[in-house]
Amino acid sequence: MIANTPKPPYYAVIFTTYRTDIDEGYFEMAEKMEKLAALQEGFLGVESARNQLGITISYWSSLEAIKNWKHNLEHSEAREKGRSTWYKKYKLRISKVERDYEFEK
Amino acid sequence: MIANTPKPPYYAVIFTTYRTDIDEGYFEMAEKMEKLAALQEGFLGVESARNQLGITISYWSSLEAIKNWKHNLEHSEAREKGRSTWYKKYKLRISKVERDYEFEK
Repeated sequence: MIANTPKPPYYAVIFTTYRTDIDEGYFEMAEKMEKLAALQEGFLGVESARNQLGITISYWSSLEAIKNWKHNLEHSEAREKGRSTWYKKYKLRISKVERDYEFEK
Repeated sequence: MIANTPKPPYYAVIFTTYRTDIDEGYFEMAEKMEKLAALQEGFLGVESARNQLGITISYWSSLEAIKNWKHNLEHSEAREKGRSTWYKKYKLRISKVERDYEFEK
């Protein structure tokens, strides 16, 4: 789903990943983290797609909200498990959305 | 491929899309536009993934570079064709990457 974000400015956390071959626990955890993120103050939405490369973008109202989510205990545990087990390589980018445009038929 | 971007700040254009059922000409044009973008001054890289939702992120050194690419004639023609034929809905977000982190095993 295209995230229904408010008028800019807001923040986008771009998470680009390569997975390992180990699926065990991954999909459950991804779903759990998406639900948990949605409960956080300042969460605005998420968009996700994967082929070989995976891209997940979460949108937030402020850098403070992103920092709070980073330090969330369950999220920190999931991140550790991600590094030890599920991800081979990733890059995370924190960006400020300055403008946006929409098109719909 | 995870784009090998330089140290921030730089810009990310986040293009989130739903396609129509019409494939004709789409893949050729997507490939052509990716090659053409890579020739533009200030282009830093691109990342792409699609399931039902598609996400393409292109990275740029400046807003000026993004504006030049927006006004590129062949790109403008491709955009028109995208609206008339290939895309049902999309959102485009222009964002400034302020920080990034990497992980690799």
